[in-house]
Amino acid sequence: MNNWISSVYSDGTPEFVSKPSPNLGDTVSIKLRVLDDSPVQHAFLRSIHNGSERVQKMRLKEVSQGLRYYEADLPMNQARVRYQFFLATPTMVYYYNQRGVFSYPPGNAWDFALLTDYVQPAWVKDAVFYQIFPDRFCDGDPDTDVKTGEYTMDGYPCTHMHWTDTPLEYPEGRCMDSFGGDLPGIRKKLPYLKELGVTALYLNPIFMAPTVHKYDCIDYFHVDPHFGGDAALADLTQAAHDLGMKVILDISINHTGTAHKWFNMGGDFFPTTTGAYHNPDSPERAFYFFHEGNEYTCWLGNRSLPTLNYTSDALRDIIYRGPDSVLRKWLRPPYSIDGWRFDVADVMAKNDTVQLSHTVWPEIRAAIRAENPQAYILAEDWADCADYLQGDEWDSPMNYFGCGRVIRQFLGKRDLFLERHPVLRDIPSPQAASDVEARVMTHLAQLPWVLRENQFNLFDSHDVSRLHNWPGITPEKYRGAVLFLFLLPGAPSIYYGDEAWVGGNEKNNEGCRWPMPWASGFEHGAAYQLYHTMAHLRAQHPALRRGGMKFLAVGEHAFALARFNREEAFVAIVSNGTAPENLVLPFGDIGAIGPEGPVDLFGQPLTFSEDGSTLTVPPCGSYLISCRMKPC
Amino acid sequence: MNNWISSVYSDGTPEFVSKPSPNLGDTVSIKLRVLDDSPVQHAFLRSIHNGSERVQKMRLKEVSQGLRYYEADLPMNQARVRYQFFLATPTMVYYYNQRGVFSYPPGNAWDFALLTDYVQPAWVKDAVFYQIFPDRFCDGDPDTDVKTGEYTMDGYPCTHMHWTDTPLEYPEGRCMDSFGGDLPGIRKKLPYLKELGVTALYLNPIFMAPTVHKYDCIDYFHVDPHFGGDAALADLTQAAHDLGMKVILDISINHTGTAHKWFNMGGDFFPTTTGAYHNPDSPERAFYFFHEGNEYTCWLGNRSLPTLNYTSDALRDIIYRGPDSVLRKWLRPPYSIDGWRFDVADVMAKNDTVQLSHTVWPEIRAAIRAENPQAYILAEDWADCADYLQGDEWDSPMNYFGCGRVIRQFLGKRDLFLERHPVLRDIPSPQAASDVEARVMTHLAQLPWVLRENQFNLFDSHDVSRLHNWPGITPEKYRGAVLFLFLLPGAPSIYYGDEAWVGGNEKNNEGCRWPMPWASGFEHGAAYQLYHTMAHLRAQHPALRRGGMKFLAVGEHAFALARFNREEAFVAIVSNGTAPENLVLPFGDIGAIGPEGPVDLFGQPLTFSEDGSTLTVPPCGSYLISCRMKPC
Repeated sequence: MNNWISSVYSDGTPEFVSKPSPNLGDTVSIKLRVLDDSPVQHAFLRSIHNGSERVQKMRLKEVSQGLRYYEADLPMNQARVRYQFFLATPTMVYYYNQRGVFSYPPGNAWDFALLTDYVQPAWVKDAVFYQIFPDRFCDGDPDTDVKTGEYTMDGYPCTHMHWTDTPLEYPEGRCMDSFGGDLPGIRKKLPYLKELGVTALYLNPIFMAPTVHKYDCIDYFHVDPHFGGDAALADLTQAAHDLGMKVILDISINHTGTAHKWFNMGGDFFPTTTGAYHNPDSPERAFYFFHEGNEYTCWLGNRSLPTLNYTSDALRDIIYRGPDSVLRKWLRPPYSIDGWRFDVADVMAKNDTVQLSHTVWPEIRAAIRAENPQAYILAEDWADCADYLQGDEWDSPMNYFGCGRVIRQFLGKRDLFLERHPVLRDIPSPQAASDVEARVMTHLAQLPWVLRENQFNLFDSHDVSRLHNWPGITPEKYRGAVLFLFLLPGAPSIYYGDEAWVGGNEKNNEGCRWPMPWASGFEHGAAYQLYHTMAHLRAQHPALRRGGMKFLAVGEHAFALARFNREEAFVAIVSNGTAPENLVLPFGDIGAIGPEGPVDLFGQPLTFSEDGSTLTVPPCGSYLISCRMKPC
Repeated sequence: MNNWISSVYSDGTPEFVSKPSPNLGDTVSIKLRVLDDSPVQHAFLRSIHNGSERVQKMRLKEVSQGLRYYEADLPMNQARVRYQFFLATPTMVYYYNQRGVFSYPPGNAWDFALLTDYVQPAWVKDAVFYQIFPDRFCDGDPDTDVKTGEYTMDGYPCTHMHWTDTPLEYPEGRCMDSFGGDLPGIRKKLPYLKELGVTALYLNPIFMAPTVHKYDCIDYFHVDPHFGGDAALADLTQAAHDLGMKVILDISINHTGTAHKWFNMGGDFFPTTTGAYHNPDSPERAFYFFHEGNEYTCWLGNRSLPTLNYTSDALRDIIYRGPDSVLRKWLRPPYSIDGWRFDVADVMAKNDTVQLSHTVWPEIRAAIRAENPQAYILAEDWADCADYLQGDEWDSPMNYFGCGRVIRQFLGKRDLFLERHPVLRDIPSPQAASDVEARVMTHLAQLPWVLRENQFNLFDSHDVSRLHNWPGITPEKYRGAVLFLFLLPGAPSIYYGDEAWVGGNEKNNEGCRWPMPWASGFEHGAAYQLYHTMAHLRAQHPALRRGGMKFLAVGEHAFALARFNREEAFVAIVSNGTAPENLVLPFGDIGAIGPEGPVDLFGQPLTFSEDGSTLTVPPCGSYLISCRMKPC
């Protein structure tokens, strides 16, 4: 008997769900497949219909590529329709849900789920994102550069830096050193990005703020003049859209800077003493949490970042509810941005006295989608946040939890959360291939498929040290990380400069924000070629963007992750082993015969066993195999 | 190295949580333990504080019974405080949550959870329930017996039956055959129940209704006169309370009978044509779902049971919201019942046009608890219903999912859900010991500990064939089922007559509702002795009621389930094997040395390996071992 259990498969793509984003009242046909040469005698679709278990015998639809397809119809009668499958052999009933196959009834937590009347930002699953920290990418207009001493913030003067300098860091994350990157610079580099294969930009904050990172906003209604002002944004989004590229903006609506005009603690920006801090009677007083002695609640104890108070209706109106609110303004022409990335969304509208997050986020979503039904809602959360990913709040977190944290730790770096801790960071905590499978699949199993396809996958960002700046990296390991990034469901995000293996260090946040080395000739380097290859492969092959996904094999130190449809299939293999490992690859599970040729897509020879079933993976090796498919 | 990982343990009992039902603003101390002889160097308490991960190093509190205890303080700042543990060895950080130990960050779904300001019905965890189907338990007043032909329902006349007859069944679940059991009969048998070890009664419906099962209620405000009327209930609850026993009542507020005075389709009961069915203008019309042609929505297509419509405020008022509503009336003197069991709660307030269940259940809970903060809210749901078990809706389901379905299938009966299906019921689908562990622990891992302790555990009821009426049963297997029932966290429920191995069959519902064989001398039989022993052991030993719980060992066909505190520990061993199995029992994980003596609590010799580590379990054997503890 073959190991037919590993071939059991369904997903939320059109190959398995006739209408992946159905409307209330629709009937959707659901498919399941399994190796034709299996002991499965019947398949059943099990759903929960108004609280009752409903078990429908599925009809045998067809046999194709050695796989048998079953089908059944499912009525869409509520906001979320859950289902799983029963597989009957002569001796055993098995259960299959988004996590895998079980020998016992596994409960509902990992059921497949269809959301009715959910609007997916459909462009995201086709996207290759490129994250830009604007001050460090390209200086398009030197006239707008910050001049040293032009202003100060809490006594720290801003400093004009030279493009080839190494960034400094000030206390309390103030980052007053400015390299001059701006929106005209980004606009100028759009052709470069297009050629790289980028289809969407994610810009770190650009609204008026004294620091370079601009998470300490002083005015949400204007783009910082040092970045080119409002007009430069309109120009950039127009130019990007003309090239078929999307633009999303980063914003922190959890807190403002103390210099924000609403708070106005003092300084060079709003030199009157109006504002919440000095005027207990000001209307903006209610936008913040003030305590005895004019103390105020701030983000994680950082006194320069006072927390906004969403019990205030006036605040909700100005941030997102009113027609001219912050979030709505920038979604409309002439700016027409394509979505928002929300800073520290994990802590938004939560403190010891207020727990409003599950009130505020659905309202934010409704406001955004009223302006643009295809706008992307990307939220910063590094941990398990599946409760926000059920269709009515976020479209995706910054997917460290199911991507970046997983692959970094697998390759030998510390988990990003353990890294923060003085004791835990020194404990090696190696990960096995099975850990990767468990982390990715338990994350994804909690999400409806339409949400999986929105996932914003990343392993580097402005908040974590760059993987290639870690001394433990090798080109093979790095390729493994990029393969993982590009093969997960959702969209990969390239952090600016990763394609250049830009300099940096692991010391602090500035260590991952070095200026883009335009003059280095990096376009001829391996990193650039790797990203270029992957981005263009993704563009050319629907299976990599919209296909099914499964772990085809999980060895001890090597795993194989596949993306596929009936026409094509790709298998990424990533190892963290110290010795060669023989990995059995059941190509038949995805309708494939084996690799298309003797080498992988990077020209590496593939060493298979004589029967073609087993690949020998070298220590820390990584492959991307294009498959030869069985005839349909 | 010992297998220290299996010793990692914490729970929600006072040994590990200083205040298991804390209030908002409290600080609670949390403990974790692990074998002292382990490589663990530090333990950390990880919580989510207003969205941020918080990792606190735990202090080493003490070493006792070979176990090292760590401790840390946790502020109760929100309705639900989640936590898990990190365990640091020199090479690895492990993660521990309610499901077990992981080598990777496992997400939050299985976190330990403390609910603030949640009121636990504290008596439940100490209870031994006894479920009574009133017509079949004891006839205390023959004068109130139904007389054959006294009334009819949809053309079916009621029939007076003799106590020793075999029950019949009518079409559409009507059950018009009446044996004469009543509330005075139950009252008369309270001393019997007390002696058996019962502390709480769960009565199937007793309100006015034509059928014997009385799920087709015609008046929620009166006890059926054939059961003794309202006064008999007041007498019964008074007498039960005098003996320290609780009483909960079954009710279906999902639907009424068609003869209910609100619906009044016609018949012997409310012979006018007032009521919703005949009068579209009647106020009760809004209590139901009427469609064109006077059609109406009914429960699972059963036309004699029209579904109630909770979009009606007037209905919510009369059922639970108003001061004299149904649910409140019976909680108050002179009836003073101790809780409600809700029939078909899984489908309540749900249909293709209305999804109100998560609105209605919190309201029902609030109404009930306003009358009696200790009232138990038990809901019928046979499947995974963890979303209702988070503190604001139900206290427990009828726990088939985590108890009855599990043990029945493990012992070789079909899963209760598969049994319903013409194809699936014929597939053996054997279960391994690991399946039992997975089913129980994934169910429990989704619940805050205070909810675990409320679980209403059962394997027999008025809805399923009795386990002992299955031809595959043996005394050893049956003991295994009862041990499992009594060792799970929560309260065991004995279905009336199980202690008598009452006659019956597996054909239909009436096959599990045979009259109690009072004259058979069953009190001298093994089943009675088994239940009597377990109920009294439970009363005598806090560990069995309020102790910690873990699977001490999971073999191939045998598992060991332990309940324990520092003073005492009990281990139930249950096998479904066809050959003897050697089971390694790591007694040290629970601070124990080994069994107290050479035999188990039923006098069965225990065959241990020379080093005392390994028990040989005979095929389908079952043991209950009382442990010798290490000195504190």
